[in-house]
Amino acid sequence: MTEPSTTDVVVIGAGVSGLTAARRLTQAGRSVVVIEAGDRVGGRAMNLDVADGVITEGGGQWVGPGQDRILSLLDELGLTTFKTHIAGESIYHRRGRSKRYEGLIPPLSPLALADFAQLQLRLERMAKTVPLDAPWTARRASSWDATTFGRWLDANAMTAEANAMFTVGFSVTNAEDPHSTSLLVQLARIRGAGGIDHTLNITGGAQESRVVGGTVRIAERLAEDLGDAVVLNSPVSEIAQDADGVSVRSARADVRADRVIVAMSPADADRIRVPSGLPTRRTMLQRRWSGGAESKLFAVYDRPFWREQGLSGQAVTDLPVTRYVVDNSPPDGSVGILLSFLGTAGAGSGQHWPDTILDDPAARRSAFLGDLTVLFGAQAANPAAYFEKDWTHEPWISGCVGSRAPGSLTQYTDADRRPVGRIHWAGTETATVNQGYFDGAVRAAERAVEEVMDVGLVSVPR
Amino acid sequence: MTEPSTTDVVVIGAGVSGLTAARRLTQAGRSVVVIEAGDRVGGRAMNLDVADGVITEGGGQWVGPGQDRILSLLDELGLTTFKTHIAGESIYHRRGRSKRYEGLIPPLSPLALADFAQLQLRLERMAKTVPLDAPWTARRASSWDATTFGRWLDANAMTAEANAMFTVGFSVTNAEDPHSTSLLVQLARIRGAGGIDHTLNITGGAQESRVVGGTVRIAERLAEDLGDAVVLNSPVSEIAQDADGVSVRSARADVRADRVIVAMSPADADRIRVPSGLPTRRTMLQRRWSGGAESKLFAVYDRPFWREQGLSGQAVTDLPVTRYVVDNSPPDGSVGILLSFLGTAGAGSGQHWPDTILDDPAARRSAFLGDLTVLFGAQAANPAAYFEKDWTHEPWISGCVGSRAPGSLTQYTDADRRPVGRIHWAGTETATVNQGYFDGAVRAAERAVEEVMDVGLVSVPR
Repeated sequence: MTEPSTTDVVVIGAGVSGLTAARRLTQAGRSVVVIEAGDRVGGRAMNLDVADGVITEGGGQWVGPGQDRILSLLDELGLTTFKTHIAGESIYHRRGRSKRYEGLIPPLSPLALADFAQLQLRLERMAKTVPLDAPWTARRASSWDATTFGRWLDANAMTAEANAMFTVGFSVTNAEDPHSTSLLVQLARIRGAGGIDHTLNITGGAQESRVVGGTVRIAERLAEDLGDAVVLNSPVSEIAQDADGVSVRSARADVRADRVIVAMSPADADRIRVPSGLPTRRTMLQRRWSGGAESKLFAVYDRPFWREQGLSGQAVTDLPVTRYVVDNSPPDGSVGILLSFLGTAGAGSGQHWPDTILDDPAARRSAFLGDLTVLFGAQAANPAAYFEKDWTHEPWISGCVGSRAPGSLTQYTDADRRPVGRIHWAGTETATVNQGYFDGAVRAAERAVEEVMDVGLVSVPR
Repeated sequence: MTEPSTTDVVVIGAGVSGLTAARRLTQAGRSVVVIEAGDRVGGRAMNLDVADGVITEGGGQWVGPGQDRILSLLDELGLTTFKTHIAGESIYHRRGRSKRYEGLIPPLSPLALADFAQLQLRLERMAKTVPLDAPWTARRASSWDATTFGRWLDANAMTAEANAMFTVGFSVTNAEDPHSTSLLVQLARIRGAGGIDHTLNITGGAQESRVVGGTVRIAERLAEDLGDAVVLNSPVSEIAQDADGVSVRSARADVRADRVIVAMSPADADRIRVPSGLPTRRTMLQRRWSGGAESKLFAVYDRPFWREQGLSGQAVTDLPVTRYVVDNSPPDGSVGILLSFLGTAGAGSGQHWPDTILDDPAARRSAFLGDLTVLFGAQAANPAAYFEKDWTHEPWISGCVGSRAPGSLTQYTDADRRPVGRIHWAGTETATVNQGYFDGAVRAAERAVEEVMDVGLVSVPR
C-alpha cells in the first residue's frame, strides 16, 4: 500500500495490541490502516535467531492459564503452545550454597517461608480492596500510591530472604525495581492477574507456556491477514482531529479516518503531536509513564546439558548478576538455552550494577557466564553462542511495559484509556486485567474496538 | 548566522543555563553556537504582557539571598531587582474563616504550629545527612528514595493543618504534588537550598526579589551579547560523536564542534538521538524525569486595591482551587496583579481537580476569581484582565523543573551530570545547590563550562 488516503480507522502501532484491534475491526467490516514506526511488526515481541532454524524470544514470551483472550487469539490464528521446560530439580542458591528442590516452592528457611506466606496473604488482602476498573477509588489508594512496593516490602518483611524472593520475582515479571513502582499499581496488577502465585509460577501460572515459533508469530500471523493495510517504517508525527474526522500524519502515509486507535505505551504516545490538545491528565500521564528497564541474556549450548544432571535449568539466586535463570530451549531440546534477566537498577534496595555490567557487553557476558558456572558447573562457561536483547535502546520503544510513577494513578486516574474525541487508546498498559501481558494487549485492543464500534463510524469527507 | 559549520562548543538550549554557559565560554575566548528549538530565548523564563507596558512573569520569577551565582550574573548584566510586595497583613483562610496576620508565620492553631516545627526540625535533621554531591550515599538513601515526601508527611504530621501548610508550600515551590516526589530528592533540595525557611519565605527567602522587566530579561541580555551565535527555531535531532569531535544536527544548522553542552531538562534531552549511545543509566534517567505540572493564574486589576485595605495580597488557604496567592504587581504598583498556582494533580493526597478545572479555561477562571472574592472581597470578582500560563502544553518544554521519579536517584545516581564523552550536561536540574532555581541554572552552566575547559579543546578537523 502506498500513501493510502482514507479509511475507517487508523491504528498506530503494529504490536500485538494494534494488530489485534485491526483484525477485529476488519472482521466487523471496517476498513483499517495500521501505521508502525519501526521496520517490523511485533513491538515487544520479537525473535532472535540463535542457531540454525532455532529462535528464542527477545521480548515477551509467556502465556498462561486464565489469559483467555490471548489463548483464544492463538487458537484463532492456528498457533500452538508448548510448556515451559521445568521437569527436574531447580536450584535455590543463597549465600554461597546451592540447594536442589522440586516443585514450585524454593527451599527457603522455615522462617522465610512463613514470612513469604504472610507477605503474600497481606498483599492479596490489600489487592482485593482495589477495584480493577478504578484502583484510585480504593479506600487506601492515596497512601498506597504515594509509596513504593519495595518500601512496603522493606517495612513488612521480617526476613531478608523472603524480601529477596519477592524482589527477584517482581523484577523478572515487571522489569522494574520494586523500589520505583507504586504499591497501588502493583496491587492492581496482582488483582488483575489473579493473584501472586499466578504472576510468579511457571506451572499453573503466567509463565506456563510458550508459543511455537515465538510470540512474534502472533503479530506476524495478524499482519499476514491484514496484508498491505500495514505500513512499516512510518513514525506518526501528528494526529489532527476536527468535527468530521482525524488526519494522521506519518513519514510514509497521511491518512484520513473516522477514528484512530493508538496502540502504543503512554510514554511512547507522548511523541505524537495532537494540535487540538490532549486533556492535561493525559499529557501528564504520558510523561509519568516509564518504560521498564530490562535486558534478556541468553547462553546457547549444543544441548540442554543440565537436564542430564536432573536439573530443570531454573534457578533462583543471590548471585551478583544472575538472579533468576530458566530453561528457554526450543520445544524439541535440539539446543540448550539458559535465559536470565537484567534490570538496569541493580538488584534490590540500594544496589547498583557497576557501569561495566550495564554498558560493557564483554564484562556483562563474563559476569553472567560466571554465575551460570556456579549454578550449572564448568559446562556452562563456554556456550556455543551468547545473545542479548536490551529493551532500553530500541529506537521506537522506550522500554518494557513499565508503569506509572508513584502518585500518578491517583492523580491521573483513567487517562490511560479514556478516549479523547476521536482518539482511542489500546496497548497492554491500558488493560485492567492482565496489564503488561499479551493477554492485556488483546483485551485492550478489543475494548478499544468496542468503543469505536459503539460510537459508530460516520462517513468521512473525502 | 546562517548554517554555521564549525565552532569550539555547541550549547543546546537558550534558557538561562545554556546562555550563561555560552557567555562564560565566550569570555574564556572560545567560540560558541547556541541552538534553541523554540522561537524565543528564556526557556522557563518568559513574560506575559498584561497591560500597556506592564509585564508579569509567566515562568520562574524569584531570586533570593544566598543565590549568589544568579545575583552576580544579574549585576554583571546590569539588571536590577525589586522586593516582592509583602507589606501589610496576609490572609490565612481555613475552614471558611479568614484570619489576618503579619510577618512570616500564618496563625495556625498552637498545636499545628508545634507540629509544623517538629516536622521542619526532623526534615532538616534528615537533610543534613544527605551529601549534596551524592545524595544516594546517605545512610538511609534507599529507604528515603523508595517513598514520597507526601507519604512521609502523612505518616509524621500529627495535624492535618501542618500537613496542609507543607503541602501548599511544597506544591507552589516545586510544581508537584508531594505524593509523587521522592523524599530523598526533596531532602537533597532542602539541603541544597539552605533549609526549609529559605525555600518557603518571601522575606529572607527564595521568593524575596523579582527582576525588573521580568526574569526573561536575563536570557535576553545574555542573548544580546551573544548576537548571531544564537540560532532559534532549530530543534536538535542528533548528536553524533566520534574520536575527533561532535556533530550536532538541528533543523536550521548542522554544527561541528569539540564539545557540546546540553542545557535542557533530562526529560527533554531524551528527544535527541545519540547514535554512539548513551550510558544505560543516563537513558533511564531521562525517561524517569518528569517535568513539573503547574499553571500560573493572574488576575489583573486597575490598581492593587487590597493594599488600600492594609492587605499584602498574600494568602494561604484551603479554598478549592486557590491554595496560595501573592501580589505580583509591577514595582510601581501601576496596576494590581494577584498570582496563584495550579498544579495538575489536585491539592494534597487523593484530591483531584475536576477535569473542568484542568481543561476548561472558563471554569478555571471562574473558580479562581470566586476564591479571590472570598479572600479579597467583591472587587476581586471583576479583574480588568485575566491571564494564564500553562507549562504542561509547551511545544519544546515538557513542564516545570520537576524531578526524578522515586527510586531513580539511588538507581541512576549522577547520570544527570556525568559527561558522556564530549557531551556535557547543564540546566538547573543538574545543579546540586539550588536545583530548580535560576541560581541552580547558573551554577550548572558554570560547572559544565569548567568541565569543558578542564579537558581543553582540541582542534576539530574542519
